[in-house]
Amino acid sequence: MIGTPILPEIRELIERRNFSALQRIFNDWMPVDLAELISDLPENEQAILFRLLPKDVATETFEYLDFDSQQNLLTALTQKDVTHILNSMSADDRTALLEELPGTVVQELLKLLSFKEFKIAKTLLAYTEASVGRLMSPDYLSVKKDWDINQVLEYIRVYGHESETLNVIYVVDDHGKLKGELLARELLLSTPEKKVEEIISEEKIITLTATQDQSDALEAFKRYDTVALPVVDSNGYLIGVVTVDDMLDVAEEEETEDIQKFGGIEALEEPYMDLTIPELIKKRAVWLVVLFVGEMLTASAMAFFEDELAKAIVLATFIPLIISSGGNSGSQAATLIIRALSLGEITVRDWWAIMRREILSGLALGGILGFIGVFRVIFWAMALGHLTMTWVLMGITVGISLVGIVLFGTLCGSMLPLLLKRWGLDPATSSAPFVATLVDVTGIVIYFSVASLLLRGILL
Amino acid sequence: MIGTPILPEIRELIERRNFSALQRIFNDWMPVDLAELISDLPENEQAILFRLLPKDVATETFEYLDFDSQQNLLTALTQKDVTHILNSMSADDRTALLEELPGTVVQELLKLLSFKEFKIAKTLLAYTEASVGRLMSPDYLSVKKDWDINQVLEYIRVYGHESETLNVIYVVDDHGKLKGELLARELLLSTPEKKVEEIISEEKIITLTATQDQSDALEAFKRYDTVALPVVDSNGYLIGVVTVDDMLDVAEEEETEDIQKFGGIEALEEPYMDLTIPELIKKRAVWLVVLFVGEMLTASAMAFFEDELAKAIVLATFIPLIISSGGNSGSQAATLIIRALSLGEITVRDWWAIMRREILSGLALGGILGFIGVFRVIFWAMALGHLTMTWVLMGITVGISLVGIVLFGTLCGSMLPLLLKRWGLDPATSSAPFVATLVDVTGIVIYFSVASLLLRGILL
Repeated sequence: MIGTPILPEIRELIERRNFSALQRIFNDWMPVDLAELISDLPENEQAILFRLLPKDVATETFEYLDFDSQQNLLTALTQKDVTHILNSMSADDRTALLEELPGTVVQELLKLLSFKEFKIAKTLLAYTEASVGRLMSPDYLSVKKDWDINQVLEYIRVYGHESETLNVIYVVDDHGKLKGELLARELLLSTPEKKVEEIISEEKIITLTATQDQSDALEAFKRYDTVALPVVDSNGYLIGVVTVDDMLDVAEEEETEDIQKFGGIEALEEPYMDLTIPELIKKRAVWLVVLFVGEMLTASAMAFFEDELAKAIVLATFIPLIISSGGNSGSQAATLIIRALSLGEITVRDWWAIMRREILSGLALGGILGFIGVFRVIFWAMALGHLTMTWVLMGITVGISLVGIVLFGTLCGSMLPLLLKRWGLDPATSSAPFVATLVDVTGIVIYFSVASLLLRGILL
Repeated sequence: MIGTPILPEIRELIERRNFSALQRIFNDWMPVDLAELISDLPENEQAILFRLLPKDVATETFEYLDFDSQQNLLTALTQKDVTHILNSMSADDRTALLEELPGTVVQELLKLLSFKEFKIAKTLLAYTEASVGRLMSPDYLSVKKDWDINQVLEYIRVYGHESETLNVIYVVDDHGKLKGELLARELLLSTPEKKVEEIISEEKIITLTATQDQSDALEAFKRYDTVALPVVDSNGYLIGVVTVDDMLDVAEEEETEDIQKFGGIEALEEPYMDLTIPELIKKRAVWLVVLFVGEMLTASAMAFFEDELAKAIVLATFIPLIISSGGNSGSQAATLIIRALSLGEITVRDWWAIMRREILSGLALGGILGFIGVFRVIFWAMALGHLTMTWVLMGITVGISLVGIVLFGTLCGSMLPLLLKRWGLDPATSSAPFVATLVDVTGIVIYFSVASLLLRGILL
């Protein structure tokens, strides 16, 4: 069942306190759908419904809840229930919850954990945010390479229940060094007598380290189309496993960061609605001020051409039109290049091929806008009934400036991300607003220079 | 082994035609790494190296190759090799290859398929691009619910080799209607005597249909954290399976489209470097012209205020600074809201809460820029040694205008995506450049109105 659960029916049963009917309905629901329902309820009802769930479903449902509902349940449920949930939930989901809570609460909650789970929680919390360690689960199964498949299968039946995944199990030596992996596929297809060592191939194993960035893990999952990857320490000892289901979330977070950076905002790192207004302002103010200070150069450029302006006010009329076209073509180019870089479609070494493409595109696009621009100026003058040679020249000035500015915008937008990348910086920092600002200042200089050349002695 | 293979060493072996050494090295490589190496080679060497691979590795490697290399190999390899590859490759990867090739080539290649594979290929190609059908594989295992686990395991050992995934196998009734799914986890944990029907739960099964959009599949995978989903027809009969490894690619494609749309370009749909320059220009020109025509209104607005401009040229000096601030704050707001909408963090119903937040943010951000603006104008006048009451008023005009324009930009940027969504349109269409253009025109009106009020009788 995909989509939002039908609330009216549920609401009625809650009002009528018909818990047995609710329990029957919930029996058919997936934990994620239960979690969505509970998140949508007012805080005082969340615990009532949550207590209706069987223990194992309750823990899984809890894992899917949003942070606010989790926090509410931690206070509303009995200590016994909280203890059960915290001890039985996936280590990686628990880390995600604990890292959001205030330190004093975390200390209280850690006391509820068994010694084993306490050690795990402490270890995982020690990894930095956005590192592979925070996604890692220490609940994996490992077997020895001299076992046969039958032994492995028996081992799984006894010890497999707590393992985060059974789609892959790992092969280690007597010291815990990772020696290979056994896919569920291989387990299911081999004859029971086959030895583990006949199946695994040590050279081909792909590993992660706990301190690596989560984006590295995402790359590896994409590249190797796998459902789980082992995490090893610097000596090659197996310490945990990361599963593919976390990767779609990492991909989403990375995308959000990229988009926000490109929109000229610091990455929010939290949902829009969860940020306080002062935080929201802070995330936006820095870039906005930087761009504003940069854009001040336009005022200086304009002041430089004050004499020309005084002689021909009409020149001012077209400034916003002209500079914004440069900004728009610049954002387009930056968007294309930043994305192609991050997909690995192009590299910095391709700069010359890119520049050639962008020069041609810029000239063509500038030509199209220039043509429309000339037409607009001349048509307007005709409509007002004063089409003179001066207006024709004014039109040509606008047209030529547009070609120059669109070309310049396209080049800035495409080359700036490559330069940043070359210098080891994040190309996404050359956000659309940043390119637009850069192009605005130059646009004014180009426009007035063309005007000076063409209109000298006529308007100027 | 993650990363680019070390080419110099390989290159030397190729030059020296030392194929046995190459074969030994390739033995330790993953198909995806082999594919990367082969893609990087000149066309005439690709087939030579490809022929060194064992048959099963060859097919998997072929699946990972980029389209150009695949096309090259199809012509360079013998018909026997091509026949083997096409018949043994995953049905979904084959569909992806065939859909890119010209119709006549596809007809030739289809003749090489066995009758069974021919039927499959024809069926899959009939689904529209970006539909679930194109990702679907008909190679799944299905069992009956009155079997016990032992029977299932034996069945898998015999028929499982060709199945796209063994992490999930499906339970169907005598007519092929989907009744449930068995996870590898459940298979491995249950006792061999248990009946399938004791494990599966019919109500909880999540299904896709072949005509659904791939983005729906992505949503379902994200929501239910699963490694495979079954595809059923309108009567509930099982027709295929989609696996999670394809989802990271779908997520990437969707992200690319969103980013390009937001940057004011039509979605490219192909890698940047693969587009011809005329195609590239076409993808960009449409939006650029639309924005240009919209921006023409700025010229009309400016012309309307020509008298004021003539009296006080200095007013013109600050126009780019002021309107670009509106555009930047508008892009920021649009970025935040579009992303939050697409993540489901906010809905159209939250418009009032969002507006309140954005009014406060806009006032604060406008206040900050306004303050810097006033300071800039007054400081500049002082530096030039002519600080008069007129300049102070000019500064205040700039400051007040900035507050108004930034507030307006923030409101446009945040409300426009919500309006589009409300009207059933894609919110991402209110791209950064679009919001900026809208705000530019209004910005000019706001600025000159403030100036008229404050400077009447002084400068105007």
